[in-house]
Amino acid sequence: MSEQLGITVKKNENFSEWFSEVCFKADLIDLRYNIQGFVVHKPWAMRIIKKIYEFFERELEARDHEPVLFPVVIPEENFEKEREHVEGFKPEVFWVTEAGDKKLEKKLALRPTSETAFYQMYSLWIRSWRDLPLKLYQSVAVYRYESQTRPFLRGREFLWIEAHDAFETHEEALEQIKEDMEVCKKVIWEKLGIPFLFFKRPKWDKFAGAVDTYAADTIMPDGKVNQISSTHDLGHNFAKAFNIKFLNREEKKEYVWQTCFGPGIWRIMAALIAIHGDDKGLILPFDVAPIQVVIIPIIFSESDIESIKKKSKEIERLLEKNGIRCKTDWRDETPGWKFNDWELKGVPIRIELGPREIKEGKVTLCRRDNGSRIIVNESEIVDKIREIGNDILESLKKRAKKSFDEKVVEVATKEFLMEMIKKGKVVKMNFCGREECAMEIKEMTNGAKVRGTPLDMEEKPSGKCVWCGRKAKEVVYIAKAY
Amino acid sequence: MSEQLGITVKKNENFSEWFSEVCFKADLIDLRYNIQGFVVHKPWAMRIIKKIYEFFERELEARDHEPVLFPVVIPEENFEKEREHVEGFKPEVFWVTEAGDKKLEKKLALRPTSETAFYQMYSLWIRSWRDLPLKLYQSVAVYRYESQTRPFLRGREFLWIEAHDAFETHEEALEQIKEDMEVCKKVIWEKLGIPFLFFKRPKWDKFAGAVDTYAADTIMPDGKVNQISSTHDLGHNFAKAFNIKFLNREEKKEYVWQTCFGPGIWRIMAALIAIHGDDKGLILPFDVAPIQVVIIPIIFSESDIESIKKKSKEIERLLEKNGIRCKTDWRDETPGWKFNDWELKGVPIRIELGPREIKEGKVTLCRRDNGSRIIVNESEIVDKIREIGNDILESLKKRAKKSFDEKVVEVATKEFLMEMIKKGKVVKMNFCGREECAMEIKEMTNGAKVRGTPLDMEEKPSGKCVWCGRKAKEVVYIAKAY
Repeated sequence: MSEQLGITVKKNENFSEWFSEVCFKADLIDLRYNIQGFVVHKPWAMRIIKKIYEFFERELEARDHEPVLFPVVIPEENFEKEREHVEGFKPEVFWVTEAGDKKLEKKLALRPTSETAFYQMYSLWIRSWRDLPLKLYQSVAVYRYESQTRPFLRGREFLWIEAHDAFETHEEALEQIKEDMEVCKKVIWEKLGIPFLFFKRPKWDKFAGAVDTYAADTIMPDGKVNQISSTHDLGHNFAKAFNIKFLNREEKKEYVWQTCFGPGIWRIMAALIAIHGDDKGLILPFDVAPIQVVIIPIIFSESDIESIKKKSKEIERLLEKNGIRCKTDWRDETPGWKFNDWELKGVPIRIELGPREIKEGKVTLCRRDNGSRIIVNESEIVDKIREIGNDILESLKKRAKKSFDEKVVEVATKEFLMEMIKKGKVVKMNFCGREECAMEIKEMTNGAKVRGTPLDMEEKPSGKCVWCGRKAKEVVYIAKAY
Repeated sequence: MSEQLGITVKKNENFSEWFSEVCFKADLIDLRYNIQGFVVHKPWAMRIIKKIYEFFERELEARDHEPVLFPVVIPEENFEKEREHVEGFKPEVFWVTEAGDKKLEKKLALRPTSETAFYQMYSLWIRSWRDLPLKLYQSVAVYRYESQTRPFLRGREFLWIEAHDAFETHEEALEQIKEDMEVCKKVIWEKLGIPFLFFKRPKWDKFAGAVDTYAADTIMPDGKVNQISSTHDLGHNFAKAFNIKFLNREEKKEYVWQTCFGPGIWRIMAALIAIHGDDKGLILPFDVAPIQVVIIPIIFSESDIESIKKKSKEIERLLEKNGIRCKTDWRDETPGWKFNDWELKGVPIRIELGPREIKEGKVTLCRRDNGSRIIVNESEIVDKIREIGNDILESLKKRAKKSFDEKVVEVATKEFLMEMIKKGKVVKMNFCGREECAMEIKEMTNGAKVRGTPLDMEEKPSGKCVWCGRKAKEVVYIAKAY
């Protein structure tokens, strides 16, 4: 039984298959829902996802964002207002056209993103510079008619947050982009241990309706990048389309400057699974784990049960009192089966509790990330668990960062670029900045794209563009992407 | 300015108008979104709503429910499976029929409720009695093509929780209904101070597809009842329609017994506004208030500002450390304007902080619910705020319960019944239990309906049915409803 339960594919041999198996066997998602591209989120996934939402919401609110909820439907006419936006999104929109047995007078889009819902209201809400900045977010699903779908990476129902901000000046809007990067660092890197680069995307790869797009990319085990968040400098584009003007401090009417920020909760979940997981299944950082400590009773004879029950309840209560999420697994299975099951689910710490432990007043703590076991006195259990919890996060960060860095290779020749992309690397190189070159690279590498220049690193180009030999204007990163 | 800000209608003179004004002026909702019946939830409403969700989720999870997320769309074929269900819901369903520029092969319903999404998966997930009970919930919006809409009472996008449970026996299902009532008591009564009766509805007024419907009704200030939650005993109806069978302890195949529970978050929000609010606006119980304590600087001269800033930051930090949500209002308005604004928003406690308070090491605490002010030493501020917070909840509960009880009138004659319904009372009376009588009453009273018999009170009928003179079989409550 335990063999069927476990993951049958090695992560470094067939990442794609491994990922699908983990999604299914760790009971994250069920693909058998009878509409293509829509999935059922099972409890273990939802409990992790709710934590990720909570982390982001806390950071956003600490930076003066407030929650709102806009309707799931947007009238067709709203979409028409920003030309690039409608062109970009219309092919992907699901349309509500009927209600009961009536045809609706106007077609309603199932929100693919909510700029065109928010901004008509912004034009009503914003009157003066005193109303600015306006910083609102909503935690919702968006709907896109994607042709190829993949759990947590690309779906017709996609979970995210969208923050929509309006400012008096372009400088403030640009500062906001840095703040969004900061929020990403706080949650994605510091809490979840997922390394990423925060790029300014090339002009030809921006959001439909944006002046500039910035985005966080992490690197998946197969070397393809995963865009886990994006921020758009919308300039005046939507302000003009939706007539969002304010009376400035000189009493003159002026358009607001806007940004929008979309942490892709689904994409971050994909990264969390893929980057930390191993051949036994998920490995969850301590803070995001729905259950942080699982207690497995080790029963040798019936007579042990009473004392183990008593002790496990004591420990549960102690941990819960200290804010540690804990559960005892009393299912009618062997300890070995339970070890495998909770390893599959990625629970950070396992406590093995048997008659010997009880007699000696000790417990055995076993770490999911490296399998190490230590025996501690009952009195130090809370401190030790906190210590190990922190250490698991730090180890996961270290390992993930190392693997991230190893996947980035600097190249100085066309041939080496081609070879490295083929090997699943992310390539870093001097670049001329021209779209023609980027398109040629994409074609010759079978899909690798210029991801842009990092916002928070000064990387000075030198010499010539590796691809075309013209003068290099920037150092860019190139990779295939999900 | 402060006059325009405030509520212009008296709650007991025109409740309906008062309610609309509070929704708008306390900045809860914006009705100007350009799709009829869909509203924008503004930050103050969302922050309250998120708290209400949190309270319910905590209670549900403490009773072994786990969170899931099912797709927002449900294929038409799923609806067809339960005859009564499809008849009940089809006239209200929004249909997604197109994507991009294609017509979809099958029409997709925007979830009006999710039985038909959940239960096809339950038929895959449930195999044996070991898989039971299965208790899952989701916190989502549902979509219904309602003809008349009203913020928080009836909307085309309606916020709720839906819990879907499956059991081995009908007894367990009936126990679950009591547990759902318990959850309602914990949140709606104990946390939010909203009194309600938990009815077993008459057979002719049950959910489409249910064997029996149970529901919590509170009474609004105008005497109309507001159904704030419902639980359905689904018996085997959906289990048969979706073929949800399990191998029982005797190794025989058997249908599961099902219940579903839907706390209407929107409806509860309506009750919260309506029942506690007064002529100045909202009054929020302490735990649900997004801001529990607001500090208003009382500035007499420029030279006060520095010391008030310093002190208010100290107090903020102290309160936050103690888990109390606090904010200082530094907007460029008069203290009076701010008092009104925060009263409108229902913040439970206001601190007035001026040079005198600072000099004396004291602060003035002012209660929203009764306007009383006390001066306390800085050292006791946390304890006092907690004490007042509790006391506000207790006072609100007491007031709400008194008003609830006064609205229920026992009647012994037809004439008195008619008179009391006309006066906006909820009527309690001996009843024969026949649908014909209920329909006559509804017609003669211009809409008052038999709400049912309370689940948790033994009320023995005596004598004759007040309406028809036949032998009374039960004591029922009759009221007009939202």
